[in-house]
Amino acid sequence: MIKEIDGGVCAAKGFQASGVHCGVKANSSPEKNDLALILSQRECAAAGVYTLNRVKAAPIYVTMDHLEDGTAWGVVANSGNANACCPMSHENAELMCAAAAQATGREPGDFIVASTGVIGQTINIAAIQVGLPDAAAKLSPEGSDAAARAIMTTDTVKKEIAVSLTLGGKEVRIGAIAKGSGMIHPNMGTMLCFITTDCAITHEMLEDALRQVVMHTFNRVTVDGDTSTNDTCVVLANGMAENPLIEWMDDDYAAFKDALAYVCRHLARAIAGDGEGASRLVTCKMVGARSEESAERLAKAVVGSALVKAAMFGADANWGRVLCAMGYSKAPFRPEHVDISFESEAGSILVCKQGDGLDFDEDLAKNILTQKEIVIAVDLHEGEDSAECWGCDLTYDYVKINGDYRT
Amino acid sequence: MIKEIDGGVCAAKGFQASGVHCGVKANSSPEKNDLALILSQRECAAAGVYTLNRVKAAPIYVTMDHLEDGTAWGVVANSGNANACCPMSHENAELMCAAAAQATGREPGDFIVASTGVIGQTINIAAIQVGLPDAAAKLSPEGSDAAARAIMTTDTVKKEIAVSLTLGGKEVRIGAIAKGSGMIHPNMGTMLCFITTDCAITHEMLEDALRQVVMHTFNRVTVDGDTSTNDTCVVLANGMAENPLIEWMDDDYAAFKDALAYVCRHLARAIAGDGEGASRLVTCKMVGARSEESAERLAKAVVGSALVKAAMFGADANWGRVLCAMGYSKAPFRPEHVDISFESEAGSILVCKQGDGLDFDEDLAKNILTQKEIVIAVDLHEGEDSAECWGCDLTYDYVKINGDYRT
Repeated sequence: MIKEIDGGVCAAKGFQASGVHCGVKANSSPEKNDLALILSQRECAAAGVYTLNRVKAAPIYVTMDHLEDGTAWGVVANSGNANACCPMSHENAELMCAAAAQATGREPGDFIVASTGVIGQTINIAAIQVGLPDAAAKLSPEGSDAAARAIMTTDTVKKEIAVSLTLGGKEVRIGAIAKGSGMIHPNMGTMLCFITTDCAITHEMLEDALRQVVMHTFNRVTVDGDTSTNDTCVVLANGMAENPLIEWMDDDYAAFKDALAYVCRHLARAIAGDGEGASRLVTCKMVGARSEESAERLAKAVVGSALVKAAMFGADANWGRVLCAMGYSKAPFRPEHVDISFESEAGSILVCKQGDGLDFDEDLAKNILTQKEIVIAVDLHEGEDSAECWGCDLTYDYVKINGDYRT
Repeated sequence: MIKEIDGGVCAAKGFQASGVHCGVKANSSPEKNDLALILSQRECAAAGVYTLNRVKAAPIYVTMDHLEDGTAWGVVANSGNANACCPMSHENAELMCAAAAQATGREPGDFIVASTGVIGQTINIAAIQVGLPDAAAKLSPEGSDAAARAIMTTDTVKKEIAVSLTLGGKEVRIGAIAKGSGMIHPNMGTMLCFITTDCAITHEMLEDALRQVVMHTFNRVTVDGDTSTNDTCVVLANGMAENPLIEWMDDDYAAFKDALAYVCRHLARAIAGDGEGASRLVTCKMVGARSEESAERLAKAVVGSALVKAAMFGADANWGRVLCAMGYSKAPFRPEHVDISFESEAGSILVCKQGDGLDFDEDLAKNILTQKEIVIAVDLHEGEDSAECWGCDLTYDYVKINGDYRT
């Protein structure tokens, strides 16, 4: 039984967090937190997955290095600058960890480091160094909200969740904060996500669970097809729930993985629905496929299509673009078998049957498509497999936000 | 010597064209031509390339069928409806050819047929049948303009060109009309393009030249990553220039192919610069590559990136997005060797050297990027190969145009 609870990234026993404004970006509002710190009372088993972009930001290499031993104590992260593609980026990522270590009495290698923001400008490391003692002083079990806000860039809503489950008679908690918005596309997390848990689990099992879950959640989100240089999703497990240690793929492992998937699915949908400029969350459910892989590829092509996304913005039931996007996905299917419906809380309408358009009630379709959450449901009538992918509509605001992001 | 001349698709000897309004789309303006006809005085060697989308519109299958013998006499094409994914689409594409044949005294199999517009709605074939005698009556050597206008959809400028060259002492002419705008993406022509020539050339050589040229021109254009169901590029050669028949890959073949490339490159750039809602033509020149293939893949990723496109709209020298797009292109390169410049008629500015950002004059950059034609020049410093791809910026108008296209 997975139950949603409060507390975000501090919901699990032994985790504290904070978020402060330190001025990474010149002239940024002092109201806007830009430096987040998360710390565990005990050493954690830790695992991460990262962007597949060939151009990786320095913090990713530093994090990979620090996680080589499978353990960590905390996370230090900033918004306002990606610390990517600029002189001294590697050194500055290490300096961030050193400053976090000094402020908390730990070692630099105990920290995961992440940055998000503009690429190619040298990060204001002095501001971060000044901010970290402040962030450390503010560490608290109620700090999730401040930390979640500190990693937001063009996000319009804070992304935070926690759940509780019972393993071997003990309550185990998983909590997380995330940021998304632009540069969101399948192939690794494509955002920042920090997950904490008090579950007792080995590094190996934790890494296995994370990889599998990310594949079915964050990797099924697309906002604009651009895969960022900085995407990072990490999980820290400190074992303080005192459940029997998960070291095999047993029932407890399965239950933990399901709860982790619940957390990541929630955040993936939140990221998709809050894509830059988005006015709607668009889900494509592809059923009746010959394989999950082809279902996923087809569904991703649909939610990734600029033309489908623009049609969703206009609440236009232009299903031809759905079929067209499937057509160039490179996944095999028979167009002449395809049924397409649009669904939302306002109802459901079949618009294409066996590859041909139907006459349908345009008013009902409009009503369905003007809701906040839309489902494009496609039945391939070829097999038993399915996949679900998430995206958002393409709006004027996407263009506005990205037309002049640096200044 | 390739010389630009007037006359468009009727510039070559023996070709006539016309464009009329027949009302394919209900309530469309009577000022807007929607039916085009092109006819040769003699049988032509003919070749075509088509969309790679798995969902192909019926006119493509009919055209493939009619071109099986390597010959054709003319083209019939409409805008306002794609004749794709709807009942009777195949039958209606055949009926279009039959009506064109009846109106011109030829056979249905003599015609190439193409449609462009909304997907999934049954085409108003009666309007086309009524319009074709009118179109046939208006066939004229001055008809290129009317035909070019008849195939426009959301295009804002007519796309037309003709060139002349000399082969074996004879003047040979090549002319063409095209339409582009939405659903423009590499992998075949991704638009409609009808090319005519009076060159004497075998079907085999014509097909070979077309395939090679399309690969380096139309396939290097991207507007929004969506590959249409209807893309078609055909060439008709009637031999009336009486040059020595091209039947080998000799010098005449090379000269003909160069001229064909000139025509297609002109139209490819015109299509990119007139992408839906576009305010600028964006060219990415990728040099110093290990192979042409990887240069092309990198350049395509840059002009295809929604974030790069939005930055170009905002005249924002956000070169980090250029490097980021290269990073997820899946082509191998070393980020730490990459130089990036922005160029236009207002000047040139180096913004990234060996993978790191430079301090640069923001005013000069803004001035360079506010021009109509922008070049993103990237030097990989790895080899001798290069490629050039074309796209456009992402604007409010793209969203507006595609938010409600059907109605």
